Amino acid sequence: MSFYAKHVFFCCNQRDGGERPSCNAKGASQMRDYAKGRIKKLGLAGEGKVRINKAGCLDRCELGPVVVVYPQGTWYTYVDETDIDEIVESHLANGKIVERLLIDQPA
Amino acid sequence: MSFYAKHVFFCCNQRDGGERPSCNAKGASQMRDYAKGRIKKLGLAGEGKVRINKAGCLDRCELGPVVVVYPQGTWYTYVDETDIDEIVESHLANGKIVERLLIDQPA
Repeated sequence: MSFYAKHVFFCCNQRDGGERPSCNAKGASQMRDYAKGRIKKLGLAGEGKVRINKAGCLDRCELGPVVVVYPQGTWYTYVDETDIDEIVESHLANGKIVERLLIDQPA
Repeated sequence: MSFYAKHVFFCCNQRDGGERPSCNAKGASQMRDYAKGRIKKLGLAGEGKVRINKAGCLDRCELGPVVVVYPQGTWYTYVDETDIDEIVESHLANGKIVERLLIDQPA
């Protein structure tokens, strides 16, 4: 079993200029902080449960802002707290993937 | 299938003081850069292959420095480039877990 049942990595890469878009310029760090707070408040944080982390560039910038949930390998994009709420409450709390936010088609 | 066959997160958290040890104070950022360079040199970087990332605190500080490989959920510690070489060449290139560096007992 995985140490964390759901280990969530927010790309928080900050680009200043250049051709590729920047997840962090679209609010990634704030949304990561928001998700972390929600998970803590719901009592879902810790071993065997959920961990929220920031990460460097996940190299899917054009689809960003992106977040990936492991070990499931589920990639999402999001716009605002409403989207984060849905990922938290549906996927992280209840194991149900949020299809409308997926960036990859289901296999 | 996972977008990256092996997605590797190095805890690069820097703590200045406090009771818990700091992965970054033990060379995590340098080892992450070293691993990234090795993967690139071996032609293993990219979609369907390997991605090396830095991450914030993975909350296993006492066992650090730590690195986790997803979607397998394999957690390692390491000391130096020799250990990173073994993780790269055995696990990341050839799919064979490096048992001596595991921080969790195999299930």
